[in-house]
Amino acid sequence: MKTVCFGEILLRLSPENHKRFLQAENFEAFYGGAEANVAVSLANFGADASFVTKLPAHEIGQAAVNCLRRFGVDTDNIVRGGDRVGIYFCEKGASQRASKIIYDRAHTSIVGAEESDFDWDKIFDGANWFHFTGITPALGENLEKICLTACKKAKERGLTVSCDLNYRKKLWTIERAGKAMEKLLPFVDVGMIGIEDARDMFGIRSGDAAAGFTHEDYVRVARQLTERFGFRCVASTMRAGTNASDNDWAAMLFDGKKGYFSKTYSMRIVDRVGGGDSFCAGLIYALSEGFDAQRAVEFATAASCLKHTVEGDYNLVSVEEVESLVAGNGGGRVQR
Amino acid sequence: MKTVCFGEILLRLSPENHKRFLQAENFEAFYGGAEANVAVSLANFGADASFVTKLPAHEIGQAAVNCLRRFGVDTDNIVRGGDRVGIYFCEKGASQRASKIIYDRAHTSIVGAEESDFDWDKIFDGANWFHFTGITPALGENLEKICLTACKKAKERGLTVSCDLNYRKKLWTIERAGKAMEKLLPFVDVGMIGIEDARDMFGIRSGDAAAGFTHEDYVRVARQLTERFGFRCVASTMRAGTNASDNDWAAMLFDGKKGYFSKTYSMRIVDRVGGGDSFCAGLIYALSEGFDAQRAVEFATAASCLKHTVEGDYNLVSVEEVESLVAGNGGGRVQR
Amino acid sequence: MKTVCFGEILLRLSPENHKRFLQAENFEAFYGGAEANVAVSLANFGADASFVTKLPAHEIGQAAVNCLRRFGVDTDNIVRGGDRVGIYFCEKGASQRASKIIYDRAHTSIVGAEESDFDWDKIFDGANWFHFTGITPALGENLEKICLTACKKAKERGLTVSCDLNYRKKLWTIERAGKAMEKLLPFVDVGMIGIEDARDMFGIRSGDAAAGFTHEDYVRVARQLTERFGFRCVASTMRAGTNASDNDWAAMLFDGKKGYFSKTYSMRIVDRVGGGDSFCAGLIYALSEGFDAQRAVEFATAASCLKHTVEGDYNLVSVEEVESLVAGNGGGRVQR
Amino acid sequence: MKTVCFGEILLRLSPENHKRFLQAENFEAFYGGAEANVAVSLANFGADASFVTKLPAHEIGQAAVNCLRRFGVDTDNIVRGGDRVGIYFCEKGASQRASKIIYDRAHTSIVGAEESDFDWDKIFDGANWFHFTGITPALGENLEKICLTACKKAKERGLTVSCDLNYRKKLWTIERAGKAMEKLLPFVDVGMIGIEDARDMFGIRSGDAAAGFTHEDYVRVARQLTERFGFRCVASTMRAGTNASDNDWAAMLFDGKKGYFSKTYSMRIVDRVGGGDSFCAGLIYALSEGFDAQRAVEFATAASCLKHTVEGDYNLVSVEEVESLVAGNGGGRVQR
Amino acid sequence: MKTVCFGEILLRLSPENHKRFLQAENFEAFYGGAEANVAVSLANFGADASFVTKLPAHEIGQAAVNCLRRFGVDTDNIVRGGDRVGIYFCEKGASQRASKIIYDRAHTSIVGAEESDFDWDKIFDGANWFHFTGITPALGENLEKICLTACKKAKERGLTVSCDLNYRKKLWTIERAGKAMEKLLPFVDVGMIGIEDARDMFGIRSGDAAAGFTHEDYVRVARQLTERFGFRCVASTMRAGTNASDNDWAAMLFDGKKGYFSKTYSMRIVDRVGGGDSFCAGLIYALSEGFDAQRAVEFATAASCLKHTVEGDYNLVSVEEVESLVAGNGGGRVQR
Amino acid sequence: MKTVCFGEILLRLSPENHKRFLQAENFEAFYGGAEANVAVSLANFGADASFVTKLPAHEIGQAAVNCLRRFGVDTDNIVRGGDRVGIYFCEKGASQRASKIIYDRAHTSIVGAEESDFDWDKIFDGANWFHFTGITPALGENLEKICLTACKKAKERGLTVSCDLNYRKKLWTIERAGKAMEKLLPFVDVGMIGIEDARDMFGIRSGDAAAGFTHEDYVRVARQLTERFGFRCVASTMRAGTNASDNDWAAMLFDGKKGYFSKTYSMRIVDRVGGGDSFCAGLIYALSEGFDAQRAVEFATAASCLKHTVEGDYNLVSVEEVESLVAGNGGGRVQR
Repeated sequence: MKTVCFGEILLRLSPENHKRFLQAENFEAFYGGAEANVAVSLANFGADASFVTKLPAHEIGQAAVNCLRRFGVDTDNIVRGGDRVGIYFCEKGASQRASKIIYDRAHTSIVGAEESDFDWDKIFDGANWFHFTGITPALGENLEKICLTACKKAKERGLTVSCDLNYRKKLWTIERAGKAMEKLLPFVDVGMIGIEDARDMFGIRSGDAAAGFTHEDYVRVARQLTERFGFRCVASTMRAGTNASDNDWAAMLFDGKKGYFSKTYSMRIVDRVGGGDSFCAGLIYALSEGFDAQRAVEFATAASCLKHTVEGDYNLVSVEEVESLVAGNGGGRVQR
Repeated sequence: MKTVCFGEILLRLSPENHKRFLQAENFEAFYGGAEANVAVSLANFGADASFVTKLPAHEIGQAAVNCLRRFGVDTDNIVRGGDRVGIYFCEKGASQRASKIIYDRAHTSIVGAEESDFDWDKIFDGANWFHFTGITPALGENLEKICLTACKKAKERGLTVSCDLNYRKKLWTIERAGKAMEKLLPFVDVGMIGIEDARDMFGIRSGDAAAGFTHEDYVRVARQLTERFGFRCVASTMRAGTNASDNDWAAMLFDGKKGYFSKTYSMRIVDRVGGGDSFCAGLIYALSEGFDAQRAVEFATAASCLKHTVEGDYNLVSVEEVESLVAGNGGGRVQR
Repeated sequence: MKTVCFGEILLRLSPENHKRFLQAENFEAFYGGAEANVAVSLANFGADASFVTKLPAHEIGQAAVNCLRRFGVDTDNIVRGGDRVGIYFCEKGASQRASKIIYDRAHTSIVGAEESDFDWDKIFDGANWFHFTGITPALGENLEKICLTACKKAKERGLTVSCDLNYRKKLWTIERAGKAMEKLLPFVDVGMIGIEDARDMFGIRSGDAAAGFTHEDYVRVARQLTERFGFRCVASTMRAGTNASDNDWAAMLFDGKKGYFSKTYSMRIVDRVGGGDSFCAGLIYALSEGFDAQRAVEFATAASCLKHTVEGDYNLVSVEEVESLVAGNGGGRVQR
Repeated sequence: MKTVCFGEILLRLSPENHKRFLQAENFEAFYGGAEANVAVSLANFGADASFVTKLPAHEIGQAAVNCLRRFGVDTDNIVRGGDRVGIYFCEKGASQRASKIIYDRAHTSIVGAEESDFDWDKIFDGANWFHFTGITPALGENLEKICLTACKKAKERGLTVSCDLNYRKKLWTIERAGKAMEKLLPFVDVGMIGIEDARDMFGIRSGDAAAGFTHEDYVRVARQLTERFGFRCVASTMRAGTNASDNDWAAMLFDGKKGYFSKTYSMRIVDRVGGGDSFCAGLIYALSEGFDAQRAVEFATAASCLKHTVEGDYNLVSVEEVESLVAGNGGGRVQR
Repeated sequence: MKTVCFGEILLRLSPENHKRFLQAENFEAFYGGAEANVAVSLANFGADASFVTKLPAHEIGQAAVNCLRRFGVDTDNIVRGGDRVGIYFCEKGASQRASKIIYDRAHTSIVGAEESDFDWDKIFDGANWFHFTGITPALGENLEKICLTACKKAKERGLTVSCDLNYRKKLWTIERAGKAMEKLLPFVDVGMIGIEDARDMFGIRSGDAAAGFTHEDYVRVARQLTERFGFRCVASTMRAGTNASDNDWAAMLFDGKKGYFSKTYSMRIVDRVGGGDSFCAGLIYALSEGFDAQRAVEFATAASCLKHTVEGDYNLVSVEEVESLVAGNGGGRVQR
Repeated sequence: MKTVCFGEILLRLSPENHKRFLQAENFEAFYGGAEANVAVSLANFGADASFVTKLPAHEIGQAAVNCLRRFGVDTDNIVRGGDRVGIYFCEKGASQRASKIIYDRAHTSIVGAEESDFDWDKIFDGANWFHFTGITPALGENLEKICLTACKKAKERGLTVSCDLNYRKKLWTIERAGKAMEKLLPFVDVGMIGIEDARDMFGIRSGDAAAGFTHEDYVRVARQLTERFGFRCVASTMRAGTNASDNDWAAMLFDGKKGYFSKTYSMRIVDRVGGGDSFCAGLIYALSEGFDAQRAVEFATAASCLKHTVEGDYNLVSVEEVESLVAGNGGGRVQR
């Protein structure tokens, strides 16, 4: 299996430990982004993963490339050009203090990319899966078009297409997002869509956030999404946050007929950025490997549970580690 | 609003993370103190705050000044002279191991300060609030006198005076403390006084520590304190410690008639030093802004809850962040 | 009292904080090992402790010596020679992700040690206690013989002998271990033996791991062990792991007649490596000081509870700190 | 004396020590810029300095403000708005490897500033000196206009105006720069202009870079600059670089009649960024204090020599330290 | 061009900055080795480079793989198996104190490798150059045989073969080395051989170390080496060490007829490990690109001069940076 | 041989690298002092060394003890009591910027020590050498008396007594110092006395500092010192400082008849604190071992040259390393 991921990779700058931005005397430097995180996670599962983006030719652009290939991602299809690498500043929360992210991602190389930058036939050569998120078309109209081209080409070539909706209100309005995604989602086989995004973007609703969504709500929404966009399956993660340090985590996979729910993990969070991305990667891996729906959702959920214990955006865990957690080994016995 | 805070600022030396003193190969350097912490918190709320102390003219003294002005505190009234900056070594506890503080604060510049060092008319110019704690008079008889002068002058000029009793047994005996505070408290409008300090220092008691104090106990003690010293209001924080990593936190504000209790926060502690000071700052801010008693105690408690998630002595949070927690947003959702 | 500990000390290399091996740009360097950890803990209790091993003459060997003598252990009986210091890489887990240890301890100086390297009469001069663990004979047949010699000599000279069984499947098979320990345990007075090790190695069993062992199970196993090997007493720790961040911790001491159980501590873990060793040290101290069985098991359990809050392998806590926890002061109030 | 400095302040991100960008796992965070560096240096001399710019309201913008006020600069006239803080990545060179800077400073708050953002009458209230560099008008045509307005207003109010030409080819062409500076320099009293910039921008030349410029060349160029723009005086620094670790450093001040040359310092470089800015600050201080030309150039050169030994952009040295170096105390004897 | 490099890659553990081993509280972790360093340098020049070795399947082995692929080296031909990664401890010297290296490289995966581990036809597919050093056969007789097989296969397939003699007395005797290299060198086209190694290993001598070797000595030795082993060309670096911080650096390339000498660089050393390897990489690149002898030796020498300014074993510089130094830009002017 | 050193050990707090005090966000923690540094250096030479002082019983005092015993110093005679450990803040200079030390050493445990704290008969048991410096009596009159007692007792017991005059003007006046040392020096066998201290304190002069002292000046002063105080020998170090980064270093030993001069080392300084102390240690070692005068001065000078390359106060070098430098191996060749 080989998955192509397309999107932006940003320089993440985080103060050490739990320091606030106002206390930062230095920043941990790291390169991540929704689709890049999926690619790295897949590579760490031993699967082939290729990341496609546009990055400047200078050393900061090169450092982003190196960060990906360090963890085994194929970077041969990354286009070099433009001036800037997007940046996000990330302050890690704790207890009642939420994590905070400041984006500085306008005017980047990928935002300025053109259709002609990407030769999708070459990019998809040998691939069986294409993944992108709603963040990519949100970066600009050219990106919306490029995504559309990529989706069409992927379908033509018989790739499975997955999309994590991932609505970001700082990047576009709910209207622009809705319109764009209406065009793209029909090409998508596997949709990862949060229950609140489904409500806000497509008016598909069931249940009530304040009261807490029920399993039935998740299934009902998934069913409507499937009907509307023709998905092969739909997945949603279910996060319940006590505070910034402790969360419950579970997920549902709807296979067109029925919703399969994972077990729920009660987590002590080390770094929650990339939690959803690691779920997508787990699901892509599981579905590519032909796991049945229950096993797939358990694998993806356990994978993303482990991500919450790993520093940075990437889920640096192996298939064996995920399988071991699925098998119930989460009690913390030292592995010697 | 402008608040003048008077007291000592010390160099805090802490081993990294949870290392013990015996493991420290380097110390994080930071400058804090009960009243300085209040001043910084107020400045971060956007209020004017001035800190008054005496510090040596050398670079370590200057570093203390710089640490304050970095966060927006007015340092123009800091007197320079003497030889030493007080120091406290602070080892962060975890789980069943308590945090440990070793003071090295004798013979400092502020301990050697004289009445003539401070021109209170100039210092109070433009101010509407004066804050000090029981630590300042505990530093020596000259400080006791200077506090008295400052209190009198503050009342003359119509400032509101607040005092956090903050009894420290390493600095003075309960007798000396009681005698000194008896003289100072009549000038105080807003008293922040722990229920155990009230019992030990003034013999004002209700309920039983072992059994756990009830809300009625807090109110009863506050009423007696108010009657004895003529306070406008009295506040007490209510900490319940499971261990050094997890605490429950709430507070009461008694407005002369009735006790108002905040909600209780269950906290994962990042750094608890300055927890009480951040409550004082929140209360001063809330009362200055004319919040009613319930809103004031909620604001001050939420502010100090957030402090427990911030490294160092200072509460580097904004009014918006505090209000957001008061409004119930403590679930740790990432703020993008 | 003076305790002689015999075994290996290894260079521990740990990524910072919760970083994974794959993220490590540097390693914290530290020197620890089962018996060395006991020696350091005893020295920090103010007791005399001597550590015996073989280390290369080069600077990495010297750094291991220095790490021990820094914390007060007598290193005069450490033999210098051979080429390598054993290494273990240690990745700290969190939440559902277990800690991971990679050993690189073959071909070390101690593995290549010979009988003639150690003059036990000189080593035991002035000592009243000899401690080793099942790891030492596991290092090779020469070590098995050296242990036997040391045990015999210790008994001749009237020392109390303690052994922590500590079965490590990476070092030897259960058969080889069983055979070796059958020869060594008859010299042992105080056995520290896990209930699962007793079952796997000696076929002594009671109850069921999956269902959870009962107090009766612990006592029944201890009684059989005592009968089989002639121990004066037997201790077992009882760890219940929710996840890698949170554990419950308690212990039993069987004095030949009855099992004494400590209170149970619910711990937030800073570093669990050396948890068992700190229990052994606490028990050796308590029994040497003549504590009764209940007090001894409470002391050893509280000591090892505190260890879980200390970075590194060593339990850097004082007798006062342990006694304070035994007395119930685990609520995390700052010690000023 | 009070100096107003106007320009951009950027977030500087530097790999640790001599690491290359490709090796950076974290960046030291620091806020600097040509005019900000002058302001900080003046504040550390004990002079009043105010920095004027536009910065976003978010925490990264606030961190820039805090970095300035920490070192005593007045930040009351900093306008808040817009989205981004400019960034520059700075890799420290060594020996034959030059330092490297990657700018990411387009689309920042200051670049988007408007005339109406700055009330120069208010800004110049109480000031006697206005300083800017050629970098500020280079940021865009609006900035060129704002500089012109500020210069006019400064002259109206009788301030001395200084400008460090500081041509940056990445920001504008030599033609655009020449045209803009022709308009601005007539308002300037004190010009800091490099001999190569004078040649490239204004065609004023003497001598030959390859052969090395002579003292006469510096004087001849300064005389022509003075005649052309009506400067009161002109200064040029003279750097001779053996390699990235070792430089010779001296300067000339031309007072309209004669060139005064400082002694030459042979420097081991700790951080050369801000070297020229520290010279400007030294000169502004010296001329404000009424030093004669020889003493002024010696002071400014010694100040900037010391800057090369200080990490970061800022020259954190006192007047006493500069005077001591002027007096010949550069031999490195420990000051106790 | 594609170069295959074969040898060992070790975990390098270095105390921070100039700390001694006895002071190290943590080690910088890095993966390097003579041939791996060549591969990384070539990859950073934009050339294809593949590194061949054997590494354990565990995470420390994986970290070594990741360190190579991060910098662009093809790791597809690395065999996984065995137990240990070799380690070297490296203490950086300064001034009169020499750098110190402690090797811990016995019993590693590569030392235990077998002929059958490597399929040289597959490995050499698409390659035009094969590089190894004298360290590889020194690891054991099996490695000697594997090198011979690789050399034969490389010659068969028409690859250019280069070898850096690099005699290490800790690994083998001069006799065993001489005998082994006599067998391997006839397959080598490009020999990198130090003048003292030529003397000690092959008895080829000219001039006198104490008096300093002359250019004629280098040529004379190179000529004899060429005659004896049939090299196409021979290169030698010429280091003159004032102390551990300052070295002079130059090199000679003998093309079978004449010796070409580079200019000499006077260097301030940041990290000298890998200096010789970076010269080899520069030479391989230059000869592959068809540079003439003078340009080749200048390129290789400038490349390795820059290496001395880069932390770690790898030469992370680009062709443009090397060419710029060759062109004379070593004066340290900041590159903006 | 066993040397007893008596004096103060202080907590040294240094900003990282070359940071100024005003930039320090953390301090490297280290424990040193003139006589402690001598003890550690001797222990690292493999000689027995015991350090005598008074330190508080708390953890900061314990950390000082541990820092000494880590490097092999006998700490059994350290008295525990009092409240504070002295502190010195140390900012490392570079190039034209001198290193700066701020002392905070009043009111410490050793300053408050009493005669009865030290049982010199017990302390000197088994020792053959006693070393102190002029700093110890400078700490107060009680210390002056204790030094006198120790000197008398040492002479009674036949120990060699050495004293490094080490005048510190911040601690006492030249008059008080002169009077005190007049009483103590008659007990001293080996005096380490700087040529300027001899002039200022005893009026013994020859030559002229500005012109540079000649070898004859050193000899002449040493001869007069010897005559006046009856020394067996006198040593002086000769430092010539180009700047804070580069110094020349040599020394003279006068054996009562003739002056022996070491070779001169041109040093790149890593850390110069403790340079003089390392010379004393080298001399004590050399004289104890019976080296002749020339060899002794070469050994002591080479030892102290190496100290300048070691971070912190301690000279962590072996006899072999010193001998190797004496033999001429200072060229920086890597030791593998």
